[in-house]
Amino acid sequence: MTAIAPAIAERYRAVQDIAREAAQLGLDFYRRRGALQVDHKGSDLQDVVSIADKTLEELIRQRLSERFPEDGLLGEEGGATDLSAPYLWVIDPIDGTAPFLNGLHNWCVSIGLMHEGEPLLGAIMDPNHDELFHGLRGHGAFVNGQPLRVHAATEIRQGLTGLGTTHRRGKEHFLPFVTGLLAEGGQFFRNGSGALMTAYVAAGRLIGYYETLIHGWDCLAGLVLIQEAGGRHNAFLRNDGLVNGNPLLVAAPGVYDQLAALVGPSLDA
Amino acid sequence: MTAIAPAIAERYRAVQDIAREAAQLGLDFYRRRGALQVDHKGSDLQDVVSIADKTLEELIRQRLSERFPEDGLLGEEGGATDLSAPYLWVIDPIDGTAPFLNGLHNWCVSIGLMHEGEPLLGAIMDPNHDELFHGLRGHGAFVNGQPLRVHAATEIRQGLTGLGTTHRRGKEHFLPFVTGLLAEGGQFFRNGSGALMTAYVAAGRLIGYYETLIHGWDCLAGLVLIQEAGGRHNAFLRNDGLVNGNPLLVAAPGVYDQLAALVGPSLDA
Repeated sequence: MTAIAPAIAERYRAVQDIAREAAQLGLDFYRRRGALQVDHKGSDLQDVVSIADKTLEELIRQRLSERFPEDGLLGEEGGATDLSAPYLWVIDPIDGTAPFLNGLHNWCVSIGLMHEGEPLLGAIMDPNHDELFHGLRGHGAFVNGQPLRVHAATEIRQGLTGLGTTHRRGKEHFLPFVTGLLAEGGQFFRNGSGALMTAYVAAGRLIGYYETLIHGWDCLAGLVLIQEAGGRHNAFLRNDGLVNGNPLLVAAPGVYDQLAALVGPSLDA
Repeated sequence: MTAIAPAIAERYRAVQDIAREAAQLGLDFYRRRGALQVDHKGSDLQDVVSIADKTLEELIRQRLSERFPEDGLLGEEGGATDLSAPYLWVIDPIDGTAPFLNGLHNWCVSIGLMHEGEPLLGAIMDPNHDELFHGLRGHGAFVNGQPLRVHAATEIRQGLTGLGTTHRRGKEHFLPFVTGLLAEGGQFFRNGSGALMTAYVAAGRLIGYYETLIHGWDCLAGLVLIQEAGGRHNAFLRNDGLVNGNPLLVAAPGVYDQLAALVGPSLDA
């Protein structure tokens, strides 16, 4: 294992602190979402979630800009500044807004960092379960200090596969995949947070995770975890995937090829 | 609201206490499941879950038999004693063994009570989120003291629908349902615990929940919550449903008919 350059060590510490701080603020919103709705007459729960989303992203951008003014920023809510900077932060303030909105306890803050066009490090904080997933290229991935390792499955039937789809492009690939998964004795899981399901694959809780279309901010931190935990992923960043999204498949190496075959050629088309 | 008969009030208090106690014991197993696997050389995680399941059910049966020796008992692990007693307890010690096994935080203890063949009361305890769902026929349903109310949705696209299927009978009805759900703009959720997803419908977090085959111990407590929170459910208890299972659909009244139409005639066949 190589020594960690100071510029990277500093950013790795920062991402963990900032993800924790933002997630705690998110938890305050989450617990008060009913009251907030009443406070803002005429607003619905969707507005409350939007306010929480924007507030968290502003906090994360502010903290990062203070400490690393030369770095670029790309976020779900606030758009991009300086996409060509050597260090580019990729931010999803609340991943899993539908679970957040509906009180389903499955959402997180996800912050990843690209360096010279490659995923370098990331943190995913789940405040409802007090789990901080984090990883740094070449130095491992962890949840609350415990090393992450992908599942040892060699057959799809040996574990649960995370799933997701949207009503935007790519949804036509979803039903054929589910059909194949069930036909091979697999089972599926969906908690509504792509970042958390990616982290769960890294942690060996799911054997894989397929989403028909996902954005860079949903999964960039997770890609680092997958790589460091011994997993595989498709060429998610090809073309303009970071900004405009692509299909995503992450999986334990023993089942990656089987799951990729179920997705078919659209995976890296 | 009518007064609660002492025999019923006593059982309603007991079910909440016992569900809490068993869930706490389950949480101890859950947190130590890695260590337990190491302790029992040669055992796999599935064995650890089985030990936890049996230990919790024994505790629940013992507590209920001490306080209500005349009542019947039906449990997932221990089978049935005196199915024809006026009061029949229906026990799932760990609902969501796959999430329990895989560290996915979504499992619960579910205890329901039938009286003269009808669901009377129940408690579902989720120790990972410290939520006790409970209800009594004619007297409401609650989570930690907060009244439960189903979702106000009138269209499937207005919320998330819980889903589940097994590789046993009935699975052929699953893919047509998902196809129809997505075609109507719906979205799905699956956390691996039927009892929790039923409770979430009662709490208005999901608009509905469909499972192609479920057992009585998975859903009996939940049926009471659904009824008391203003929801609807199919004729789950018909024939020998309590013991041998049936399909289950629970939903907010504004979307029940739409979801039932997507399931088709197999729902109450």
